[in-house]
Amino acid sequence: MNTAGRLYGIGVGPGDPELLTLKALRLLRSAPVLAYHSAADRESIARKIVDQHLPGNQIEVRFHFPRALEPEKASSIYDQEIEPVAEHLAAGRDVVVLCEGDPFFYGSFMYLFTRLSEKYHTEVVPGVSSLMACPVALGVPFTYYNDILKILPAPLPPDILKRELLTSDAVAIMKLGRHFPKIRNILHELGLAPRAKYIERATTTQQRIIPLDEVNPEQVPYFAMIVIPTTSRL
Amino acid sequence: MNTAGRLYGIGVGPGDPELLTLKALRLLRSAPVLAYHSAADRESIARKIVDQHLPGNQIEVRFHFPRALEPEKASSIYDQEIEPVAEHLAAGRDVVVLCEGDPFFYGSFMYLFTRLSEKYHTEVVPGVSSLMACPVALGVPFTYYNDILKILPAPLPPDILKRELLTSDAVAIMKLGRHFPKIRNILHELGLAPRAKYIERATTTQQRIIPLDEVNPEQVPYFAMIVIPTTSRL
Repeated sequence: MNTAGRLYGIGVGPGDPELLTLKALRLLRSAPVLAYHSAADRESIARKIVDQHLPGNQIEVRFHFPRALEPEKASSIYDQEIEPVAEHLAAGRDVVVLCEGDPFFYGSFMYLFTRLSEKYHTEVVPGVSSLMACPVALGVPFTYYNDILKILPAPLPPDILKRELLTSDAVAIMKLGRHFPKIRNILHELGLAPRAKYIERATTTQQRIIPLDEVNPEQVPYFAMIVIPTTSRL
Repeated sequence: MNTAGRLYGIGVGPGDPELLTLKALRLLRSAPVLAYHSAADRESIARKIVDQHLPGNQIEVRFHFPRALEPEKASSIYDQEIEPVAEHLAAGRDVVVLCEGDPFFYGSFMYLFTRLSEKYHTEVVPGVSSLMACPVALGVPFTYYNDILKILPAPLPPDILKRELLTSDAVAIMKLGRHFPKIRNILHELGLAPRAKYIERATTTQQRIIPLDEVNPEQVPYFAMIVIPTTSRL
């Protein structure tokens, strides 16, 4: 009789391989199959983070969820993309899915979780998120006491971004990429630009911290963040 | 000639000792002095998390920042409380400060950081926050795609809480304690109660998940959280 494999979604942290948790390391090394999100022509960030920790004898599976598709079309593509993971589970092999940062915090693992966790035993391991790593890398205490903190994805419309920015004590703006010029204009308009700190690829060897007005909008990666720390005094 | 010690603020994660990062573990074991926040009559949560990882030959220093003081009075008490840490640094001993969750995310370490980091070499290590650990422990994918996520401290006034709750896709309400009845009433009033998940002491051996309407308001700890996950479909 065949026993189904178990699914693990493990947060591998923001980039520095030393920011893996002990639990993630243990599970990472013990599973016969690793799976991770990756476009065909790109290196997987999560795979690179764990590279030095791998025993070297594991099966590796890639999947890719294209961004910005219409929901119905996306769903059927996502179903197809996770099929190889489901096959390993059905064949009785445990699968560890590598997740940049944390699995449930804007992570692509959730597309696997919603499709597979009712059928297969599933365990999720939280990770150090870029939300925590970016303020630390910038050296700015982020949010204190009774502050309101908001996480705002940069693709949101300007009127919503402005409304939310005006009623926050601390803010993280994620998923910058091509939306950077819109965001920078809004921050200037609201008088928030002097407080805003820009960072990309935090804790990796490619980390860059750049003054907001010196950022080249043509070169802003998706994994860039603007952090607006609290003004509370301590 | 005396060389000053270095200050390390390390996130030790939400409770499970296996959610420590490799970097936190390394620094934790290498410093001659450990410091942590603790009232005189209470066990330190952060100290308990790392207990099994300690080599057993370290000096330990407690400090305590009372809550809910007037800012001016608080500041002079905080200055006094960190004095033993400053003395070890001045004497050339490295000090590791243990921080529950992440040091810059509503953490008491920031009171040390703002007072000591200009004078002493300081390094901060981000940790797994309860913000990531609670949704994972609840088994609810938290926030997707272009969701607006807000972190709202429960002591905020009801009108501000309502305004912010009505314009969020996903929410974490922290620092519940004695504010729980106010929060539960607001969630019912806004129709959000069916989506709200209550958890206390996530990932520790005392973790409890309780349906919102069955929570006893007399027994809600400070380290309890209400998570309202996104309704986005995937």
